[in-house]
Amino acid sequence: MRKYNVAVLGVSGAVGRMMLRVLEEREFPIGTFKLLASSRSAGKGVMFRGEEYYIEETTRDSFRGMDIVLGAVESDIARVYKEDIVKSGAIFIDNSSAFRLEKDVPLVVPQINGDDLCTHTQIIANPNCVTIIALMAVAPLHKEYTIKRMIVSTYQAVSGAGNEGIEALREQVIDPTIYSPIFPYPIAYNVIPQIGSFTEDHQTSEEIKLQREGSKILHAPIEVDCTCVRIPVYTSHSMSIVVEFEKQVDIEYVREILTKSEGVVVWDDVESNKYPMPILTSDQDKVYVGRIRKSRIENGVSLFVCGDQLRKGAATNAVEIAEELVNRGIL
Amino acid sequence: MRKYNVAVLGVSGAVGRMMLRVLEEREFPIGTFKLLASSRSAGKGVMFRGEEYYIEETTRDSFRGMDIVLGAVESDIARVYKEDIVKSGAIFIDNSSAFRLEKDVPLVVPQINGDDLCTHTQIIANPNCVTIIALMAVAPLHKEYTIKRMIVSTYQAVSGAGNEGIEALREQVIDPTIYSPIFPYPIAYNVIPQIGSFTEDHQTSEEIKLQREGSKILHAPIEVDCTCVRIPVYTSHSMSIVVEFEKQVDIEYVREILTKSEGVVVWDDVESNKYPMPILTSDQDKVYVGRIRKSRIENGVSLFVCGDQLRKGAATNAVEIAEELVNRGIL
Repeated sequence: MRKYNVAVLGVSGAVGRMMLRVLEEREFPIGTFKLLASSRSAGKGVMFRGEEYYIEETTRDSFRGMDIVLGAVESDIARVYKEDIVKSGAIFIDNSSAFRLEKDVPLVVPQINGDDLCTHTQIIANPNCVTIIALMAVAPLHKEYTIKRMIVSTYQAVSGAGNEGIEALREQVIDPTIYSPIFPYPIAYNVIPQIGSFTEDHQTSEEIKLQREGSKILHAPIEVDCTCVRIPVYTSHSMSIVVEFEKQVDIEYVREILTKSEGVVVWDDVESNKYPMPILTSDQDKVYVGRIRKSRIENGVSLFVCGDQLRKGAATNAVEIAEELVNRGIL
Repeated sequence: MRKYNVAVLGVSGAVGRMMLRVLEEREFPIGTFKLLASSRSAGKGVMFRGEEYYIEETTRDSFRGMDIVLGAVESDIARVYKEDIVKSGAIFIDNSSAFRLEKDVPLVVPQINGDDLCTHTQIIANPNCVTIIALMAVAPLHKEYTIKRMIVSTYQAVSGAGNEGIEALREQVIDPTIYSPIFPYPIAYNVIPQIGSFTEDHQTSEEIKLQREGSKILHAPIEVDCTCVRIPVYTSHSMSIVVEFEKQVDIEYVREILTKSEGVVVWDDVESNKYPMPILTSDQDKVYVGRIRKSRIENGVSLFVCGDQLRKGAATNAVEIAEELVNRGIL
């Protein structure tokens, strides 16, 4: 079997570390393996498949000879190295928001729009975590009923803000007065209805992603009202979603479609209090859907959706994109 | 000034204790004061206005000579004593859900439908906490634009489940494996999309309250899609609300209406990250509204609303009903 030279860019962050775990678990066929980060982490040893690898400081030459670069850095860093990665000949699967909406950059959730990979020009974007988790639940229904509108309220975990977010919650549950710069207010015993920065129309940068990225992934203009809220949970984003479809909905068939959907688990039984929750869905690659019921909106369905945003919402989806490139013979 | 004989029924629970604090703070004119609870709490001393009162075990005779009974007990207990309270001649302001939807029982938020008190027949119901907090924000807008539909997702504090809810979170943030019977699953670092029991159509008992109670309070049939979620916060319920109105909405006028509304604070400035949060609104009687913005739904407005559910969502509203009875000369 062919092996691929893989670099992980930004390996010391929460998503980068998870990429290593996912690559290991899924036995991705790796030849040369490079762990790249800033000078702060350079030299640190990391165990991978029983061997010790050392983190290298990223330079413009770091990508030579690589087939795949998995990006787990912020947008500004992704932009810095983009040209170097492309010149090296590697495919850049980037988790940042830098290139997601660019016309020639496929934005891909393999279970939904893997076909879009065929037209790549070396940069492939991994969608936002809320987008991936929400779409895993609604895209299979979109095929059947066509989404008109979605109203989404999120319950987002602190690890979505990386290691510092985790640390802030860990400290603040003991002493809520401990200051952390990662969130605008204390997060322990609190909720913060702001993720990202505010836009001109009083939405946040996080809230507009589902609308824009969702429309691109589904190749259909969907209307989204989204309210993104940070809550004191370590891992797994939850979402309360009301979807309005173009066509009349059969709720039993909704259940059937979702039950058959790859990567989705229907966890929904009111008799035995089964519904998705962070403690159930964390450290798993599947997206869980429950509380499936008719909405009072015409052709509407209510769902409660929950998934590990570091895994399917980030690292797992990126590795699945790499697998899809291999399976389709693109790489 | 006339004084009123007041009994608090269920004084040792989270709402009952808050009723004492609110009566004290607002200097309600109390003559004889009775603190009633089950035999478990009987004999315990409680400080009120600098004097020590002793909790009495509730009996069928406990209400004799009372003008007002403030009920902070579960529905079954409220039903047990209802007849005795009525026979005693007192007005029963009941926080339970036992009588809220009965035809001759006014269900009142004084700032919204105080007029309904005029037709009371000794029992007056205090609405559910989510209903009160949500309606404080949307009722002033309903007057101007007429609510057609609301889509609500809640972020509800553990103290909504009483003292045991508080205790469960306190223990579980240290050790999430500690079992508490008050919630179906651990609540620390988790969210639970079930409050109350499930109904036939897969909603929960908590979720249907806003629809039913809201329609009664507003004297208008409003359609509500509600998803109620317990989160690891001690006090203050938060809500993400999208309201669809019958008429076209001017978002600046929405702000103006809410700014002028009694009992409401508009806390909304994206320049300085001002929005409602539990750490801001707890231990206060006002309901805070922020994240005010146009929804993509026609005639729609998005809001984030937050209020102390033990105060305005329960104890404060009950005491305000008593004050309203006095001010209107009904009592």
